[in-house]
Amino acid sequence: MRRYSLPCSETRLREIISAYGTPFHLYDERGMRENVRQLQAAFSWHPDFKEYFAVKANANPHLLEILAAEGCGADCSSLPELLLADAVGLRGEEILFSSNNTPLMEYEAAVAAGAIVNVDDVSHLEKLQAAGLRPERICFRYNPGKSGIGNAFIGDPREAKYGMTRPQLTAAIRWAQAQGIEYIGLHTMVVSNELATEALTATAEMMFRLAAELHEETGLRPSLLDLGGGIGVAYRPTETPLDYAAYGVAVRRLYEEILRPAGLGDCRLALECGRVITGSYGWLVMRAIHHKHTYKNYIGADTCMADLMRPGMYGAYHYMTVLGKETAPKTQVYDIVGSLCENNDKFAVDRELPEIEDGDILIVHDTGAHGYAMGFHYNGKLRSRELLLQEDGTVREIRRAETIEDYFATLTYPGLKRSM
Amino acid sequence: MRRYSLPCSETRLREIISAYGTPFHLYDERGMRENVRQLQAAFSWHPDFKEYFAVKANANPHLLEILAAEGCGADCSSLPELLLADAVGLRGEEILFSSNNTPLMEYEAAVAAGAIVNVDDVSHLEKLQAAGLRPERICFRYNPGKSGIGNAFIGDPREAKYGMTRPQLTAAIRWAQAQGIEYIGLHTMVVSNELATEALTATAEMMFRLAAELHEETGLRPSLLDLGGGIGVAYRPTETPLDYAAYGVAVRRLYEEILRPAGLGDCRLALECGRVITGSYGWLVMRAIHHKHTYKNYIGADTCMADLMRPGMYGAYHYMTVLGKETAPKTQVYDIVGSLCENNDKFAVDRELPEIEDGDILIVHDTGAHGYAMGFHYNGKLRSRELLLQEDGTVREIRRAETIEDYFATLTYPGLKRSM
Repeated sequence: MRRYSLPCSETRLREIISAYGTPFHLYDERGMRENVRQLQAAFSWHPDFKEYFAVKANANPHLLEILAAEGCGADCSSLPELLLADAVGLRGEEILFSSNNTPLMEYEAAVAAGAIVNVDDVSHLEKLQAAGLRPERICFRYNPGKSGIGNAFIGDPREAKYGMTRPQLTAAIRWAQAQGIEYIGLHTMVVSNELATEALTATAEMMFRLAAELHEETGLRPSLLDLGGGIGVAYRPTETPLDYAAYGVAVRRLYEEILRPAGLGDCRLALECGRVITGSYGWLVMRAIHHKHTYKNYIGADTCMADLMRPGMYGAYHYMTVLGKETAPKTQVYDIVGSLCENNDKFAVDRELPEIEDGDILIVHDTGAHGYAMGFHYNGKLRSRELLLQEDGTVREIRRAETIEDYFATLTYPGLKRSM
Repeated sequence: MRRYSLPCSETRLREIISAYGTPFHLYDERGMRENVRQLQAAFSWHPDFKEYFAVKANANPHLLEILAAEGCGADCSSLPELLLADAVGLRGEEILFSSNNTPLMEYEAAVAAGAIVNVDDVSHLEKLQAAGLRPERICFRYNPGKSGIGNAFIGDPREAKYGMTRPQLTAAIRWAQAQGIEYIGLHTMVVSNELATEALTATAEMMFRLAAELHEETGLRPSLLDLGGGIGVAYRPTETPLDYAAYGVAVRRLYEEILRPAGLGDCRLALECGRVITGSYGWLVMRAIHHKHTYKNYIGADTCMADLMRPGMYGAYHYMTVLGKETAPKTQVYDIVGSLCENNDKFAVDRELPEIEDGDILIVHDTGAHGYAMGFHYNGKLRSRELLLQEDGTVREIRRAETIEDYFATLTYPGLKRSM
């Protein structure tokens, strides 16, 4: 069973609301640090474990700085994400560049940063070579193509655009070895938002066996064994967060059984989690501004899908609380909706909650990953500010709210005003 | 059966590509004008018909200017959309403000613009009154709450957050009459992306009967009868675009049968179409930059979901052609994918197409509505430029491509560079 909490007292949150107004995203530095330390502790038995934070989950450099200070690297998928990693001081093999169908210009930036260039296909490296680019560190993405591996969120690996087949992988390694590239890693990404230890360790087992086989076959000693991300967030009350320690123990067992006997015990072991690192340490704080009863009971919030796409886009569940009414009886059933002219724009559907009055503060939990990062401007809507509750209890604005000026930035049109 | 075409010759398109590079959105002024004229002609029997273009479908002011010149008004749903309507010179009852859960500040702007304020609930008007705002023109959104009305795209009206019930509508009209408001309109929005004349005329019949009943009941002579939008685009080759003329004839029959006998023949009749107005007059032009065969055949394009969310978000179909190979035999089956680290990022899945080589120009059809407008920045991806093919054959950039500067605009972070 999942337990939900706020990173501060009701009184403190009301102070923050008074200072900044609603809506905003709030992140909890302390919780995020403790969380990442726990993940790392679960793998402290390994001589060289590294978590590469998947920047796509939350691309705020202030959060990336915190994670870098905790020893995380960055998994980047575009030039802007590489620039964010660079800005927080990450360098060389602290950066993994996992892109696909990548324009040459982005590869140039990744090579310039000394990043580990994680490629989908050997043809990418041939193109880099043709352009005179020679990445120091490369990594190959493996797609097992079996329906036994993978989970419901990411689907059948055979339908995934990522990675190469087993024969392609061998050929790619031989190509890289022939080029004299010394740093060659192995990567996969077959599960997403997974809470079961078994599904995650199945990936580890697959990758360990793969490394051992490829070592046998090609002599490769992989510089990096990247199990991908995929650890889920227990969004629903009935779900239980992954037990990092038990996961670490299970991976260790496979390591002792497969990897160490193969003589590959000192290869860097990596995860590239995003969601589980920041997900539960972010909250979307908004205000009820309207209620209406038609065929259902609706509560209208002062923000919309622009700040959180997951419920509208995937039908995803996010727990919600009403500030000060956390323990009040859930006597009502509401749809909590945003202001978009798009009927999917609902934060919660048929949700049991205490009675809500206009002006009440509504809190959407677990919005720290794939929240702000996925927002759009549909209907001319703007994204809200991001606030960081720092370890010392002070609050800092780490991203300002978008303005109409931002919305019109790419337009030149005579007489286009910024206010009415 | 749908026929697909480009707005210019292959030679001309290659010139445009040479001048601007790929990817870009291309819009066809001539096609858009002819299309809107045909829609208006289908309703020329009515003394006061107006199409309010739903700005959310495509919020480029250069296109809005063209539509305004053709006599369209604007259906706006936020302050930025109101500002766009204002910039192209639309005023007063040429602007419909159809919002929901609207912040007071946006209502102020709508009232300042003299727009028709289209409200979901009488409580909105009470709030406006409490704030000292008195809209000259109001409109009430009706939600019939019957499962017989509505279509698959918009779902059961009972699950829709929009509009008020029949008793609420009567009460709202009485409230407005008591306030002495003279301009009172009626609106509904129960279908979306619909190609069947019957489903669309069912909405007209419902609204005409509603107007007649309410006239009887309250004495209301609605200033506006807004049938909503909802005309679809024939995205698939097996679909047939709506026959505007037949639709106009069918609505006219209902008008003669219901509305005129009720003495309401001169109420303004409105549609608020977005999709059908610009949808088929936009193309996303991109280049194949990568191909790979794993468990399927993949072609990688030089853009991604940031420029077109519909396939990834809704599984929506968009027809695709390969420039210069329009009539070549479709010997291959491809997934055409973007560069996002998100497996949904596919423009087409299992699509039969001619053989594609790296460098080929890929064209996604029908991207003129809900294309650019829905784009996001997930993975640090940027949206492409918009080009207008003008009636005289010249091309104008009507929106520049987003830059890294835009992506970082809301951040302050020391050492954050704009290039590597």
